[in-house]
Amino acid sequence: MFHTKRVENLAAILRKKRLDAIFAGPSTDLEYLADLKLFDDERPKGLVISSDGRIFALAPMLYGEEMRNALGGDAVYKIWADHEGFIEAFVAGCREIGVTGGKIAVNYGVRAVDLIDITAALGAEYINGASMLSPLRRIKDETELENLRRAGAIADAVMEDISKFIRKGLSEKEIREELLRLFAEHGAEDISFSPIVARGPGGSMPHYQGVGGIVRDNDFVVVDMGCRYKGYCSDMTRTFCVGGASDEMKKIYDIVLKAQEAGEAAVRNGQTGQGVDRAARKIIEDAGYGQYFLNRLGHGVGIAIHEEPYIVEGNDAPLEPGNVFSVEPGIYIPGKFGVRIENLVAVKPDGTAEPLNKFTREMIVVR
Amino acid sequence: MFHTKRVENLAAILRKKRLDAIFAGPSTDLEYLADLKLFDDERPKGLVISSDGRIFALAPMLYGEEMRNALGGDAVYKIWADHEGFIEAFVAGCREIGVTGGKIAVNYGVRAVDLIDITAALGAEYINGASMLSPLRRIKDETELENLRRAGAIADAVMEDISKFIRKGLSEKEIREELLRLFAEHGAEDISFSPIVARGPGGSMPHYQGVGGIVRDNDFVVVDMGCRYKGYCSDMTRTFCVGGASDEMKKIYDIVLKAQEAGEAAVRNGQTGQGVDRAARKIIEDAGYGQYFLNRLGHGVGIAIHEEPYIVEGNDAPLEPGNVFSVEPGIYIPGKFGVRIENLVAVKPDGTAEPLNKFTREMIVVR
Repeated sequence: MFHTKRVENLAAILRKKRLDAIFAGPSTDLEYLADLKLFDDERPKGLVISSDGRIFALAPMLYGEEMRNALGGDAVYKIWADHEGFIEAFVAGCREIGVTGGKIAVNYGVRAVDLIDITAALGAEYINGASMLSPLRRIKDETELENLRRAGAIADAVMEDISKFIRKGLSEKEIREELLRLFAEHGAEDISFSPIVARGPGGSMPHYQGVGGIVRDNDFVVVDMGCRYKGYCSDMTRTFCVGGASDEMKKIYDIVLKAQEAGEAAVRNGQTGQGVDRAARKIIEDAGYGQYFLNRLGHGVGIAIHEEPYIVEGNDAPLEPGNVFSVEPGIYIPGKFGVRIENLVAVKPDGTAEPLNKFTREMIVVR
Repeated sequence: MFHTKRVENLAAILRKKRLDAIFAGPSTDLEYLADLKLFDDERPKGLVISSDGRIFALAPMLYGEEMRNALGGDAVYKIWADHEGFIEAFVAGCREIGVTGGKIAVNYGVRAVDLIDITAALGAEYINGASMLSPLRRIKDETELENLRRAGAIADAVMEDISKFIRKGLSEKEIREELLRLFAEHGAEDISFSPIVARGPGGSMPHYQGVGGIVRDNDFVVVDMGCRYKGYCSDMTRTFCVGGASDEMKKIYDIVLKAQEAGEAAVRNGQTGQGVDRAARKIIEDAGYGQYFLNRLGHGVGIAIHEEPYIVEGNDAPLEPGNVFSVEPGIYIPGKFGVRIENLVAVKPDGTAEPLNKFTREMIVVR
């Protein structure tokens, strides 16, 4: 069913931006507006919402029953069959809710190839609407915060268990599978992304997806994982040391830990995303490793694993109470290893950070 | 590493269509061209390939090492940092391989929101390139066919095992989890899509994703699943009956079975996708259930779970030896149940069908 208030708020944003409508394809935007999870195949589908709050649901026949069940009666439905294609249904549905041109936003769930066909069929100015719902979504209410805390607590428990499981001789694949088992055991409804387990040189690639490495003595093992609780994500990284650490490993771990702490400590009333990024980055740059910190300090987390606010140079908007984001500095030495430490934090009413992860950030040396 | 011959063939297609380049985002097109699997986050990335075969790799800094490792030296790289955004790197990379405007195709891995930004920065006519690689990809060579056969054989074995596992009282979730366990046990490298297990009324939604139903007496249980073998997918559906079937259930099962057999039998030299769809659909329509068959008869399968050729009204291109596709008629009665039977078939050199699934299609009644 639609979250009526959220749809109204979105329509108000459209009016304020002088847009006529938004077309939102399969995405967490649809989960936010209507708890609608759509199978992401090649059949265009989604919702068009007009600036006066009318809704048109574009549904491949295959999903007609599901979308009606999920959304209820408060929408115009246009169902299209595989042999018809979606364009005629799209244009007819838009007309029926009064959208005949003007300025139409599209969200990040729409494919470029479909926008090309839409543009040819319905003359309008199409606008990048990737962030259209962000002013709503990035401020979490108390229920959402509670779900995020629970998701974080499950991640904490799984991280503690996996710290006791990792040992020399295990493959990345075995550790990944144990993570999946542990999440199920601890009551996660799902994982929030495919977990990253990267030993030694794999760890220098922040989103490493390999599974073949075998844990050896003196390895760093990066474990980046998270789950969902009532749809809300956790996201947490720890880097474990196997056997023992060289002086260089100890030094780099310590720099990343200090940067992570500095990032969390920089969250305070009036602070910006850019300010938090700078506070953590400065520690790494001052230590001479700036070129090895490859990414922004963090990203917002909610029903999406990456959403606003982004903790990045250039984001000079003040953080708001209810924002939830990751603080995840790293040092990535190609061909050698990587170290990353990541907590999620929520911005409290006083503007400071509430960490959603409690598991120790100190270096753990496993056998 | 690039599959040089495939890239050359793609460039030849671009020249034939008088296109200047294609921009391919994260997608199986990139796996086909270069075994490149990209993490699908909000950071734009991918390859631009010009009509003279030059290649530019757009890489977020986070993925720079991975993309270089995967692709090797035969490309121009533009690496962009999170705080810079991708547009400048995109335009500079295009220029460096001689792409400065004209007609540029985009594939289905590019997001509409990014195309909007690209269009503003690089004036060109952007073309729907969703099918640009299909003339190459839809004809499988002997190695690809062998991988598809192996993936099909694993699905057969798992389907047989699950037929002995399903019983009254189990939840859809428990059956799903057993499927995942069985795929791992039988040596699948991955699943090809999130398996569908739908009892009773859930079965009327072809892509049902629920997990809460409990199997009861006189239920149909639809099981639609598949795995990957060396990257190639299987996709297979059987509908089991629990306890016993009513006359209506027997009748409907029989219609779907006959339609499935008729679809496979219709595959012969010179036949079209549309012709195969019609042959199966006629059985269901003649029996009076046409309105309950909600989708095309089938879709191609390869490294993507849905690709060309589509077995659908309107596809009047002759099938070719090496095509591999599903034949999956169904009857979906809202609120009641669904029946679907699906095999993959490969088109043999003589134009007839080689089924890639061998497990019985007859109705199995489990306790």
